[in-house]
Amino acid sequence: MNIRKIKFQPKKPDEISRLVAWESDYGQEVEQVVKDIIGSVRHMGDKALVDYTEKLDRHLVNDVKQLRVSQEQLVEAWESIGDEVRKALQLAKNRISEYAERQKITNWQLTEADGSIMGQKITPLDSVGLYVPGGQAAYPSSVLMNAIPAKVAGVSRLVMTSPAMDGELNQYVLAAAFLCEVDEYYTIGGAQAIAALAYGTESISPVDKIVGPGNIFVATAKRQVFGQVDIDMMAGPSEIAIIGDGSAPAKWAAADLFSQAEHDVNAQAILITTSEAYANEVVEAMRSMLNDMPRREIIEQSMTERGAVILVDDIEQAVAVVDLIAPEHLEILTENAMDIAQRVKHAGAIFVGPYSCEALGDYVAGPNHVLPTSGTARFSSPLGVYDFQKRSSLIYCTADKASELAKSAKRLAETEGLPAHALSAQLRIQFES
Amino acid sequence: MNIRKIKFQPKKPDEISRLVAWESDYGQEVEQVVKDIIGSVRHMGDKALVDYTEKLDRHLVNDVKQLRVSQEQLVEAWESIGDEVRKALQLAKNRISEYAERQKITNWQLTEADGSIMGQKITPLDSVGLYVPGGQAAYPSSVLMNAIPAKVAGVSRLVMTSPAMDGELNQYVLAAAFLCEVDEYYTIGGAQAIAALAYGTESISPVDKIVGPGNIFVATAKRQVFGQVDIDMMAGPSEIAIIGDGSAPAKWAAADLFSQAEHDVNAQAILITTSEAYANEVVEAMRSMLNDMPRREIIEQSMTERGAVILVDDIEQAVAVVDLIAPEHLEILTENAMDIAQRVKHAGAIFVGPYSCEALGDYVAGPNHVLPTSGTARFSSPLGVYDFQKRSSLIYCTADKASELAKSAKRLAETEGLPAHALSAQLRIQFES
Repeated sequence: MNIRKIKFQPKKPDEISRLVAWESDYGQEVEQVVKDIIGSVRHMGDKALVDYTEKLDRHLVNDVKQLRVSQEQLVEAWESIGDEVRKALQLAKNRISEYAERQKITNWQLTEADGSIMGQKITPLDSVGLYVPGGQAAYPSSVLMNAIPAKVAGVSRLVMTSPAMDGELNQYVLAAAFLCEVDEYYTIGGAQAIAALAYGTESISPVDKIVGPGNIFVATAKRQVFGQVDIDMMAGPSEIAIIGDGSAPAKWAAADLFSQAEHDVNAQAILITTSEAYANEVVEAMRSMLNDMPRREIIEQSMTERGAVILVDDIEQAVAVVDLIAPEHLEILTENAMDIAQRVKHAGAIFVGPYSCEALGDYVAGPNHVLPTSGTARFSSPLGVYDFQKRSSLIYCTADKASELAKSAKRLAETEGLPAHALSAQLRIQFES
Repeated sequence: MNIRKIKFQPKKPDEISRLVAWESDYGQEVEQVVKDIIGSVRHMGDKALVDYTEKLDRHLVNDVKQLRVSQEQLVEAWESIGDEVRKALQLAKNRISEYAERQKITNWQLTEADGSIMGQKITPLDSVGLYVPGGQAAYPSSVLMNAIPAKVAGVSRLVMTSPAMDGELNQYVLAAAFLCEVDEYYTIGGAQAIAALAYGTESISPVDKIVGPGNIFVATAKRQVFGQVDIDMMAGPSEIAIIGDGSAPAKWAAADLFSQAEHDVNAQAILITTSEAYANEVVEAMRSMLNDMPRREIIEQSMTERGAVILVDDIEQAVAVVDLIAPEHLEILTENAMDIAQRVKHAGAIFVGPYSCEALGDYVAGPNHVLPTSGTARFSSPLGVYDFQKRSSLIYCTADKASELAKSAKRLAETEGLPAHALSAQLRIQFES
């Protein structure tokens, strides 16, 4: 396993940019396939869903009703998964919910001296669709992380879709859906599921927003229906950057890098360190641990092709490198880790100190594990309750306030060549209408 | 001017959905033109900008530097526009800023009994691009509404681009850019401006987010660069819905409907009323006012093709119709307007009572005039300071907390088939590592 080593040169930031560059252009073919699937579902409704589910998931049914997972199936799954997993899921739910409650945005009003009010009114979305991938990437934690903030926001209809290849269901995912009180659950996958959620069919009412990860067909479909409904961010491969000063065991850093690398050959794990000796220790630890890793082939490819060790002169430079990368996950395995955390500008989630590893955040710490990937932490936030709430502005003017404001509004409408705007304002000017 | 009249039937909500349906599919041709322009700017940089600006804006320069508007030009514009407009812009800025300040999202931390901390850290975006259309739709108010929340958020680099057809500049737009302390201003328009903002060229550094309205080339380009940078919502035609009970002068309602209709033949203005007499009065007022409207052709086409009067039995039904439409702007020209406002779920901005007309909100009331259009108020919010801030999660676990959480994290990682996650957690379990 060869891991590239880079000496950071502050005057050549492009070297870091090239290292983390990722472009997800799947080309015209996927776009067209997805467009056709969406078109079929819009025009043929349930029938298209049944046909695609047979063809793509090898799951034969006569009717969309048979693709609906019943509440009894969810209860059974919950009861079947064993006490230890149930407790772990329940702990995760409690902590995710508590964090989510704190995130809620709320109404406010600015009341002016004359009684005029400018305010903001918050409403939950009516309905949300949650896509959960099938097969190996069917993660119960993904159900919790997407469903809980929607429910805390007050979304009254949460619809989950997940493909059941050959009709097979993942009991952990069903149990998580039970725990999160998902309202409807269909075993439909791919672009056809996204189309059904966005436009509705005879059996499935449309939703207002679609969240959750998926393969390139799902991601492309989400992009295509954006505008008809809202979507969450477009996820790229997962990344971790670790700042190490040598104070945490090399084995810990190695395991944490592996926990990212095992996701996917495109996942990216980067160690940023002030100590060349520590860099060598961590690489050595990775080499000695690799053979015991069940997913070693994925890890090796990911670490070789996309991993890196970046040597920096000091913590100042380490923070500069982090801000260039804007990593999805940042671990600060150093002394005075909280001070360093405060200096970082761009990262999705910041794990502070040697005990706070990403795996805790992936499952149970509380903050959401749906995070901006591929440098989009420059401008995006973790998924949160606020993604399932929306704001309306409130504008209440007294007669006097309206009269005062209308004079300026009228003048500005004139500069913009909008005379009906000017007239509408003018009518509110006292003694002049 | 014929305006359709609809009697609302609660069991046939589709009639309302059809009335407001809007699909913005510009087809493959625009997509391809835009893709080519973006490709050229990415590969040819400044040279492509100069070429497109000559070809598309008939504005010939030798160098992108000549497309940069100087601070002196901004100062001159500010000084040239006259005292009255300057005061109106300053009033608008003060009120928009005050409202924006109240919107800021802030850091918080949940500290647990053992000292573990789960928190949220807020950072402004580093750089934002603001697109301002040229020609007739060059609105100084648009500069204020987009630039002020970015500046209040703390964005340190705000780059404005706006085409100068034949090299001509709008002095009001320049003055607004001066007032809002725009940091860089280029007279570049169209998809080429969006490409330059998203990817950068030799002379223009890229930004993290692009906001502002534009024609279909601009809108398509924004959609294509989404992911590389963030974008604001995709704006459709503008709409207003007015709830009237007959208590406000018919002429006021008529002028307010016109103020929407004059924007664009696709703009939509709808009166919802409990009183057929009032409906007739408002329509009559519109007929008698139409000839005095400088933009009467646009108004007439908009009102005839997309306008409507919807008769409802009571206020309950009026609110139901509003929630079906999810209008960008809602005026409540009734008694007890604030009570009704509280019952509405879906609207971008709610103007409460007869004095609070949309034109005040378009310019000076304070809340943002960039609002979700075409029914997207079901899931979107007005533009605000929060659009220029982002969140990072903070996770700090003590050794004891990590040990406790790691047991559940490990168990869940095992259910998901992610052994390196399990190992990373396991290493934090005390007495077991």
